[in-house]
Parts: sequence; C-alpha cells; structure tokens
Amino acid sequence: MTRWKCVCAYDGTGFAGWQSQRGGGSVQDAIEGRLAEVLGVDTRIHASGRTDAGVHARGQVFHFDAAWGHGPGKLSAAIRSRLPRSIQIVSVREAKPDFHARFSAKGKVYAYYVRIGDASPFERPYCWTVMRPLDPAAMLRAAALLEGRHDFKALSATRGTEDDDPGGTVRTLRRLQVVARGRRVRLVAEADGFLYKMVRRIAGALVAVGEGRLSADDLQAFLRAGARTARVETAPPQGLFLERVLYR
Amino acid sequence: MTRWKCVCAYDGTGFAGWQSQRGGGSVQDAIEGRLAEVLGVDTRIHASGRTDAGVHARGQVFHFDAAWGHGPGKLSAAIRSRLPRSIQIVSVREAKPDFHARFSAKGKVYAYYVRIGDASPFERPYCWTVMRPLDPAAMLRAAALLEGRHDFKALSATRGTEDDDPGGTVRTLRRLQVVARGRRVRLVAEADGFLYKMVRRIAGALVAVGEGRLSADDLQAFLRAGARTARVETAPPQGLFLERVLYR
Repeated sequence: MTRWKCVCAYDGTGFAGWQSQRGGGSVQDAIEGRLAEVLGVDTRIHASGRTDAGVHARGQVFHFDAAWGHGPGKLSAAIRSRLPRSIQIVSVREAKPDFHARFSAKGKVYAYYVRIGDASPFERPYCWTVMRPLDPAAMLRAAALLEGRHDFKALSATRGTEDDDPGGTVRTLRRLQVVARGRRVRLVAEADGFLYKMVRRIAGALVAVGEGRLSADDLQAFLRAGARTARVETAPPQGLFLERVLYR
Repeated sequence: MTRWKCVCAYDGTGFAGWQSQRGGGSVQDAIEGRLAEVLGVDTRIHASGRTDAGVHARGQVFHFDAAWGHGPGKLSAAIRSRLPRSIQIVSVREAKPDFHARFSAKGKVYAYYVRIGDASPFERPYCWTVMRPLDPAAMLRAAALLEGRHDFKALSATRGTEDDDPGGTVRTLRRLQVVARGRRVRLVAEADGFLYKMVRRIAGALVAVGEGRLSADDLQAFLRAGARTARVETAPPQGLFLERVLYR
C-alpha cells in the first residue's frame, strides 16, 4: 500500500459540499466513486477539511492509501479521465506513510470575493454581490485588528454537534488582506487553522464595516466577548475559495 | 406601445441556445416567460440573432413592444428580479419604433477563448481546451489573411434549412485579433455579419494552423474554393461569446 497525496480544484456550485453524505452529491462522493472504478476497490479519501455546499476550491488536498504499481502519472490520468468537469485533479504524488491531509496541515489560505453592484452571469456563482458601496480603508483597518492570535469564537458558527471546537477557538490569523479594485474586493485569509464558517463570518463582518453598519471597535468588542453574535452576518458560500493547504 | 431595446448577458451552459423551442430551455423562453409575468401579456422578443446551445453572450441585444408606462428603470428592475441567475439584463432603453435588433445591426463582435492544457473547473465551461502547443505567429498570419471581404462559405455550416444563406456568403471580416498570453489565446472577430458557425469554424481553422495541421495557404485555398470543407473543424460552443452588437 502506498499513501497518495492529491491536490484538487472544484467548482462547488452543483455539489452538496465536500463531505460524503447519504445519497451522494458531494465532491468526496464523486472522487471516491471514480477511485473505486480505477482501483477496483472502495477507497476512503481524507481531506484537509470539509467545505460547505457551494464553496469552491483551487487547492483542496486529500490523501488515500492504494496498492497501485503504475506510478503517479498514470494514477492521475486514470482518475482525471473519469471525473465530472467541475472537479480537477491538479496533482497526485506519493506521500510518506505518516502524511495526513488534515493532521499534517500547518495552515490554510482562503480567498473571499465581494462584488459591488450587479454581477455578470459569469461572476455570480463566484462572488457575494452587495449593493451598497464599500469603504476599503475602513475594511483595511478592521482587518488589521483581526490579524494575529485571538479567540475567534465570535466569528465562528456551531456545526450543531457535541464535538464543536474540540481544540478550542483560539487561532492565529497570520494574514488578512483586503484588495479593492474598482467594484471588486478580494479578501485573503491565512491562518494556522479556521473555525467553522470563520472566513465567511470575517467576510460578513468586513463588509458590514465597509458599509458603515459596524465599526472596528464593534469587532474588537465581539472578539473580547468571546461569544457568537448575531450582529455579524455569515457571507454566502459562493464567494469562498479554499486556495491552498500549507504543509511543512 | 413602445419599442424597447434590451442588452443582456447569459451563461449559455445550461441553455438549449437562444432560440425558443418546444419544451422550453432556451434563453428566449426564459426571458419571454418573465416578460409575460411582468407585462401580463405574452410578448415576443426579437434578438440580433440566435446563439447555439452552450454559447455565451455578454452583449446580446433584443427588442420587444410593450405598453408600459413606468419608464425603463422600473421595467428593467421588474424583469431582472425574476430571471434565473445565468441571465442578466444589462440595460433597457426606449428605442425608435423602427429599431430592429436584427435588421438594424451594422455588425457584431465575438470572442473565442482557447486554453492550452488542462483548464481549471472555473474555466472549462468558457473555453476550448486543446492539448498541443499553439504557434501564435502562424495564427496571426492566418488571421490577417482572413480579414477583409471574402466569400466565407468554406468557414460556415449549413443549418439544414432551405433558407440557408439567403443573403449570400460574402461577409466583411473587419477585424480578427489573435491575443496570446501564456497558455491562453483569445480570438476577437468583428464583421458586418456572420454566417452560421462562422466564428467557431474560424477558431477551428486558426487552432489547426497554430498546431501545424493546416497552413495559411490551405485556408486561402478553402476560401477560394468557396465550398464547405470537412478539413476545418468546428470549435466547441463553450469557448464562444457574443460580445457586442453594433448599431449606427
């Protein structure tokens, strides 16, 4: 058995999220379905983490174990040729036996796209459309406050399961960029790890600041309170892209 | 009754082309369906021309007649709010009574996108993926030969109806740009009018030249012969965008 590390990209529009579910329809279901055909045996894949329905990925990583003797190039070609158009296998490499897509990860990078005013049909599945103008300077100041090591519970959501946040809610947000270009604003967030819906709630908070509905002081108060707050909106899934998973 | 001129954009991926058809599923069906709800009366719309299944538009133009007394802003808002996400109403304006989206047009601009090597899931619905490298210099030379007034019958297809090419097959290709950037090649074609599948067959011809399968001399010989040829491939629909319809 060899452990394989795969990088994949997917357009999340038509999927019920990453995670396998009864009835299928997830990205994991699609990839495991093709793997079973290629390998002739049911094979479980393990991702760096789940993405919600409608969320996209340019660099999701997963691993699996398989007895395959024809090298990574042929394995990659075999999986690729049978996948739906909305999933792309970017690379397949042999990994060390102790590599784990989730537990070996040292961090992740997400991007979130906001568009001010009516988006074209080509952008709509890939951004959050907001109708009011945004103040990028205010968003930048708020983003700077969020960077660093904080308890991000206020900017997370519960999955509704008992094992919510088993590792606590403190994370290090290494980078939170706000890049405004005309009617488009791109947010880039890098952290050692993200809580559930954390990027979408950061996006919701920054847009609220950009529209003047919340202040940077409000955000700081939410962080300090350390409790989930309904005053921060969760931005919709289609603006979110898992860009990269970082390993040593 | 007022005549209204509309500019619209659509992602053609999920549609059976522009033209209304039994059973629905076309862009025209979707827009006419919403118009009937807004206006309370069945209203036929007339486009600058059809686009095939899978072809996209950033600037398709259509007109219709309606007794609507609340101005173009409210008409636009009413239609927009009820359209699927893959169709966008870009503008709605009052037109002169003799304006006709098709017969008043003085020209059209199309773009065609080619991608060399595996495209991401975000690009795949919007380009033609070719696996061999392309020689942009050879494509540029061939494009220059196609510009101007020619009989383009060799680079057209039959619709299979008796009224094929009622206006003849001579057209003036005012501009045929080849813009290569890394692994992407964009073709931009502007003409006084286009024959059926003409842009997709021009794209197929230029890619064949770029791959070295056809020469510029071959293309000239095809044009001179003035007959449809199986040696030119029709590029797939998803790379094609109707960019703009030109009026006086």
